Amino acid sequence: MNDLKVNFERLLKDLEELGKIGQDPLGGVSRPSFSLPDLEARRWLQQRIEQAGLVCRQDGAGNIFGCLPGKNPQVVMAGSHLDTVINGGRYDGSIGILAALECLRRIKEENLSLNKTLEMVSFTDEEGNLVGDFLGSRAFTGQLQVEQLKNARTQFGHSLEEILQKAGLSAETVAQASQERPEVSAYLEIHIEQGPVLEEEGVAIGLVSAIAGKRYYQASFVGRAGHAGTTPLELRQDAFIGLADFALKANQLTLRKYEGNTVTIGRVMLKPGSFSIVPGQADFTLDMRSLDGQSLKAIEEELLKLASEVASTRGLSFFSQLMDGTEPVVISEAVLNRLKNLCQELGYQYLTLPSGAGHDAQIMAAVCPVGMVFIPSVDGISHTPEEAINYEDLEKAANLLLRTLISLASE
Amino acid sequence: MNDLKVNFERLLKDLEELGKIGQDPLGGVSRPSFSLPDLEARRWLQQRIEQAGLVCRQDGAGNIFGCLPGKNPQVVMAGSHLDTVINGGRYDGSIGILAALECLRRIKEENLSLNKTLEMVSFTDEEGNLVGDFLGSRAFTGQLQVEQLKNARTQFGHSLEEILQKAGLSAETVAQASQERPEVSAYLEIHIEQGPVLEEEGVAIGLVSAIAGKRYYQASFVGRAGHAGTTPLELRQDAFIGLADFALKANQLTLRKYEGNTVTIGRVMLKPGSFSIVPGQADFTLDMRSLDGQSLKAIEEELLKLASEVASTRGLSFFSQLMDGTEPVVISEAVLNRLKNLCQELGYQYLTLPSGAGHDAQIMAAVCPVGMVFIPSVDGISHTPEEAINYEDLEKAANLLLRTLISLASE
Repeated sequence: MNDLKVNFERLLKDLEELGKIGQDPLGGVSRPSFSLPDLEARRWLQQRIEQAGLVCRQDGAGNIFGCLPGKNPQVVMAGSHLDTVINGGRYDGSIGILAALECLRRIKEENLSLNKTLEMVSFTDEEGNLVGDFLGSRAFTGQLQVEQLKNARTQFGHSLEEILQKAGLSAETVAQASQERPEVSAYLEIHIEQGPVLEEEGVAIGLVSAIAGKRYYQASFVGRAGHAGTTPLELRQDAFIGLADFALKANQLTLRKYEGNTVTIGRVMLKPGSFSIVPGQADFTLDMRSLDGQSLKAIEEELLKLASEVASTRGLSFFSQLMDGTEPVVISEAVLNRLKNLCQELGYQYLTLPSGAGHDAQIMAAVCPVGMVFIPSVDGISHTPEEAINYEDLEKAANLLLRTLISLASE
Repeated sequence: MNDLKVNFERLLKDLEELGKIGQDPLGGVSRPSFSLPDLEARRWLQQRIEQAGLVCRQDGAGNIFGCLPGKNPQVVMAGSHLDTVINGGRYDGSIGILAALECLRRIKEENLSLNKTLEMVSFTDEEGNLVGDFLGSRAFTGQLQVEQLKNARTQFGHSLEEILQKAGLSAETVAQASQERPEVSAYLEIHIEQGPVLEEEGVAIGLVSAIAGKRYYQASFVGRAGHAGTTPLELRQDAFIGLADFALKANQLTLRKYEGNTVTIGRVMLKPGSFSIVPGQADFTLDMRSLDGQSLKAIEEELLKLASEVASTRGLSFFSQLMDGTEPVVISEAVLNRLKNLCQELGYQYLTLPSGAGHDAQIMAAVCPVGMVFIPSVDGISHTPEEAINYEDLEKAANLLLRTLISLASE
């Protein structure tokens, strides 16, 4: 079984079919969790799992599994997520699921008898379109409480509970999903890099050494609305000017003091929101990331303090609410070394690199050793309709995953 | 007729009834032109006009008139607008219409025989919720072309033509509305100040000496979207950081070089608009106002140049489109003096002051002498649910309007 390879044509065909589900007239794929396209993609995936002769199940969080039982119930797991951001790409998430599916399908075809059980997984709402990233993997690893889920609302004010109920789930089933979890001995995930490094270095395979932690705040500067023509500039309490001041200073501070870390303001809404009214309120998202837990904490404290200072010098108020936070994760050395060795055996060049983006692997790290394999993103872009990959890179990553699963399940 | 006064109780009752039409559950009044609440308000006003025994008509732009014929067809006109911004106040526009209605009603009750015809008017879409301010008064004064109307779309992308058709109008009827215009010898408008000056000075009556001109642009900085966690700060082309830089510099430049003039960024939309994505595009509104035509032109040129400079130093592109522009207007000396004299006769303190906000009077200035009477805005605010007035100020303004109409129509 040392020369076993995936059926890459079959994998590409799956990728093409899945990419058609949720195609958005405005570009790319829009498949947020539990939307109609996501529900269609889920049905499609369940059929594919069953056609492959794997045992299909869904847990209380809507995570979908395809199982290939081994001699003992300990599970080596691989997967990613079906959901996308609005107008996202066709590869973020999908390739991790479909590569895992192809690996298990191929192993079953060969009738390989392995010690451990293999399972592919599709985690619910990795993108956090509902109530923060990683709902599915957080539920699977027992990190969600029923109370917080019951009252949770999406950014558009919809009740999470109502959305879950339409999908035949509930706050209770999500909170209890971890009770159905088998003993997992390792979790592997193939993902696009969503950054420029691998492409610039000309390397097909990235082995992730660490995953950045994140703080995501919903925040507001509040001043006083006024008519654009009658409120003199010097008397204004313009919430947007406060935000502009903060945004520039936050960027400068992070660049100067916390090199390599990031701060992003990705969404802004001014109220009342008319061209002829001085904004009385500026709502915005504040996203901070770091590979180092200490730095992340320091950036968070400094930027929130900076925002309060900007507010007080400009006669504004500042409010913030933590929407989501994850700690940085260092990847298991044992799994990373296994991946390195198998790359050498396969003759694949690789690069070890950190991941600035969060992934389900980061959440799974709470319950088992994890490994992540990146392939290059064309032009380094992701979360847009233009997201693209080179197929030969995916083929290599899928073959590396196949070997790694066999190797880990043979122990 | 030198001691004739309006029936202020009746005027207040009208104000109360009209204020209930379009009450918004989110606060204030939302009555944008041709919305269901605006259509309801139009029906209400037409009934009131007919109940007063005035001749009611509507022109091709949806402007509503109530006419009290005099000995000759020359018209002295007074009015304002029924429409409001979203979550606006109950006084902006409404008081100008209802005061004019009350004046004509009172004159008719007294059977005064005047030389000139009196007409009250409600102009369509003063607030520019459709396609730029002053649609109704621009149409009435013959400033709109059918071609520009046919292809016009609202800020939300709706076709103006379709909206007009639902109200029984069309691009053609709007463009031809000025053909129905009688000979107007003067236009008067009562309005709230929408600023703090009168309240601070403790004066009930403001006589407007000039109205600011305006340039309103829809503009964009365009950079490159990227994942918030994987795109290093120093490699970003963050469209929002470009906008923040521009906003601060534009404010500073205007304060330093063009004191007394204003620049406002009242609406911002980042694209793609996710907390986890570096904004590739920042769309925003840019509103510039000045009482001086030369200054307005200079501010416009300098700020657009500044935006291009900010864009080029930050690796961004800058795009802008002029949505609406008006020139500053100096108020007719004859009408202003008449208003001053009548204030003295009535024993009312007054202040002459410029208006930073645009008004239909500014548009009417193209076809006749105009006069504007301001009353104080409580706390200087407007275009918000908290907009308020003191009723005794409105009573004074209404009595001043009554005397002025009689005086002008007696010539």
